[in-house]
Amino acid sequence: MRLVIIGGVAAGTKAASRARRVDEAAEITLYQEEPDVSISECGMPYAISGTVEERSRLTSRTPEDFAEKDIEVLVRHRVESIDPEGKTLSVENLETGEAFEDQYDRLVISTGAQAVMPPINGANLDGVFKLRFLTDLDDILAYMERHSPKKAVVVGGGYIGLEVAENLVKAGMEVSIVEAADQVAIAYGQEVADRVCDHLRDKSVKLYTGDQVEEFTGEDRIRGVKFGDTELETDMAIVGVGVKPRVSPAEEAGVEIGQTGAIRVDEHMKTNLSNIWAAGDCVETTNLASGKPAWVPLGDTANQMGRVAGTNAASGEDTLSFPGVLGTGIFKVFDLGVGKTGLSVDEAEDAGFEVVSAGIESVDRAGYFPSAEKVFLKLIAEKSTGRLLGAECAGPRADKPLEVCATAIWGRLTIEDLVNIDLAYAPPFSPTLSPVTQAATVLSGKLDS
Amino acid sequence: MRLVIIGGVAAGTKAASRARRVDEAAEITLYQEEPDVSISECGMPYAISGTVEERSRLTSRTPEDFAEKDIEVLVRHRVESIDPEGKTLSVENLETGEAFEDQYDRLVISTGAQAVMPPINGANLDGVFKLRFLTDLDDILAYMERHSPKKAVVVGGGYIGLEVAENLVKAGMEVSIVEAADQVAIAYGQEVADRVCDHLRDKSVKLYTGDQVEEFTGEDRIRGVKFGDTELETDMAIVGVGVKPRVSPAEEAGVEIGQTGAIRVDEHMKTNLSNIWAAGDCVETTNLASGKPAWVPLGDTANQMGRVAGTNAASGEDTLSFPGVLGTGIFKVFDLGVGKTGLSVDEAEDAGFEVVSAGIESVDRAGYFPSAEKVFLKLIAEKSTGRLLGAECAGPRADKPLEVCATAIWGRLTIEDLVNIDLAYAPPFSPTLSPVTQAATVLSGKLDS
Repeated sequence: MRLVIIGGVAAGTKAASRARRVDEAAEITLYQEEPDVSISECGMPYAISGTVEERSRLTSRTPEDFAEKDIEVLVRHRVESIDPEGKTLSVENLETGEAFEDQYDRLVISTGAQAVMPPINGANLDGVFKLRFLTDLDDILAYMERHSPKKAVVVGGGYIGLEVAENLVKAGMEVSIVEAADQVAIAYGQEVADRVCDHLRDKSVKLYTGDQVEEFTGEDRIRGVKFGDTELETDMAIVGVGVKPRVSPAEEAGVEIGQTGAIRVDEHMKTNLSNIWAAGDCVETTNLASGKPAWVPLGDTANQMGRVAGTNAASGEDTLSFPGVLGTGIFKVFDLGVGKTGLSVDEAEDAGFEVVSAGIESVDRAGYFPSAEKVFLKLIAEKSTGRLLGAECAGPRADKPLEVCATAIWGRLTIEDLVNIDLAYAPPFSPTLSPVTQAATVLSGKLDS
Repeated sequence: MRLVIIGGVAAGTKAASRARRVDEAAEITLYQEEPDVSISECGMPYAISGTVEERSRLTSRTPEDFAEKDIEVLVRHRVESIDPEGKTLSVENLETGEAFEDQYDRLVISTGAQAVMPPINGANLDGVFKLRFLTDLDDILAYMERHSPKKAVVVGGGYIGLEVAENLVKAGMEVSIVEAADQVAIAYGQEVADRVCDHLRDKSVKLYTGDQVEEFTGEDRIRGVKFGDTELETDMAIVGVGVKPRVSPAEEAGVEIGQTGAIRVDEHMKTNLSNIWAAGDCVETTNLASGKPAWVPLGDTANQMGRVAGTNAASGEDTLSFPGVLGTGIFKVFDLGVGKTGLSVDEAEDAGFEVVSAGIESVDRAGYFPSAEKVFLKLIAEKSTGRLLGAECAGPRADKPLEVCATAIWGRLTIEDLVNIDLAYAPPFSPTLSPVTQAATVLSGKLDS
């Protein structure tokens, strides 16, 4: 059995490894367009500041590591098209320009996501970057080495933009963020967005919201950024306005695309075409809190999907299932952690729920403990049943309450469960009643009784 | 309606506050034997080292604070007996020696737990302490001020002993722990206990296991500790070998005691006697993972029980329920956090489950992230159904995986749920797959399929 995998970041490499475990005899080939595989893309912002010192730490495995497991990994190879009838692929070797045909018995598509590049004049100037691949990081680091930039502009105030801004500051630059929307962190409610804004100001990051970047100015190299009535001088710019699923060449081959624009799969990660599975950032899944299609491109989810797709593709059976996601996400900006899971108030109302919510400010350790830090936690629940639907959290250790809430949503627990749940209390780890318990107690008063 | 509450630490004060909210007109009196109320007993070890600088930080509210809510708090008053027929109490004012009678319409018993003092010769020497009440802490701090002890012995290697040992080291002393059992942290499996031992050695704490302390030696002041063939020189000793429920005067009044030795209550925190509720460390509850009676004296649980008892006593109805506990506990010893939730392998087998377990060592952040720390996580599940029954964790940030597992046990989630659950990934907060996901993936291979 010949298994071919297209794409070698989180989902693709996981699928390859799992397939090898399931079928020791399978012939496995993985095509990867970039020169590296197993890339920790989420770690790239931290290499800008040197927080992650060695680029090599961002690739957990090399093609040689895979070769030891008898998995052929061909980097700098792009799959141009898929013929699902003949079970063949057209492939280009980007190093040599050579094109050739390959065949498969089973195929896993894990082509990932690509950076959205808005149509901005001057986007091809030297010093204007995106940060999607390790090669982008290499370009940024080389430019910083060459030009020692003093000022940087980040275009986009989503989580990647915020992470990049932090690391540019840590690299010694004066940093401005330009965000087209009226707030940063637009996936979040106002309470969280305001906390992010305040924190950015504390860290001397200049924030411009409500205007779209129109132009990068300069001759060969960037010298400025224009938006609204403003022109900022800058020595470099990093554009992080979002990503979209990369569904080519799957779509052209007849693979069905869902309403989110990503590849539609069933719970076994099978596409509509026989012998073709898909996994990772190119795939649409289900939000388990709303029951609706969701596209959530994140490394952990890609990894979990890759496990399912690789296992099922290797066995040829519906061995494993991937139930869906909660849309859990978290990012750090300087000392603040910001995350959400499940549905926001708006998302829950759109999904047809009548909701109540409560936000509390508390501390994340016993108040008398020197390392206690502030935490904001908002819980969103269905009014009639008390079922937890979502949570948003901001604080240096936002990850813990968020994971408790994610687990609770997954288990369809209610606010009453959260009021009574037996969490881990000791003064160095939590106030007597955890912020989750506190917020649930406040919210319990707003439920239908 | 006259509501009397016996005991004013976590459960009692919470019950009083909740009762006032439910019934604005109730007459509420709380009797507390110690001179303080609302004591954060769990914070006391940290006052020994000055980590918590001010004693006043360890009492979150004073009798005057309660008076503002029209709750009468009488400290240094001991309730000697209860007459449930006549609904009367005999009370002694410990300050004046005066005895008097009081009456109640409804009563909440929250008499807490008391330190177990093993019969050791010389236990009344100056410099031998327990650490149960703030007054014990006062005695310890006064002794340290007076004698500047250089060496200390901690009797008992449970979590309180370990917390005390850390803080004595931080106060500048040479510290030895003497534990009668063959390991410290006996509530935990060998993997965790070994990690605690290694960590204590790294921190230069001397550990003696397998021998019971026989004698404290010295004239008026302690000079040594004898056990087995050893006599250690010491300038002070703190005994922390455990606590037991304080069921007097409830037991003498006919309140039913459960098989754990604590007061039996129903889910509404009602005792067997009319108009008498009980809450906190003096009360037996149910372990929700095993369905069996459990006695788990902890501040967070006491607080949650106090909320239920206070609400129901004030309303006279079964307004709220307390479903039970998972036995979640955590403690810190130096840089290591150690915790458990649900059932250990032995406890699960005793409860009749056929179990499988898997322990993994991983990291708690992306491996390339500088602040990543090692974490050990062991999951215990029912073999036939995959239901999560328990978890043990050791690592600086053990609290997060533990709370995820506690929530999962509460929600009766399975290992397959934990394999797929959508937790909060970003490199500063988690490796791509959380330790919980990793351990669940390993354990999934051991389940009946």
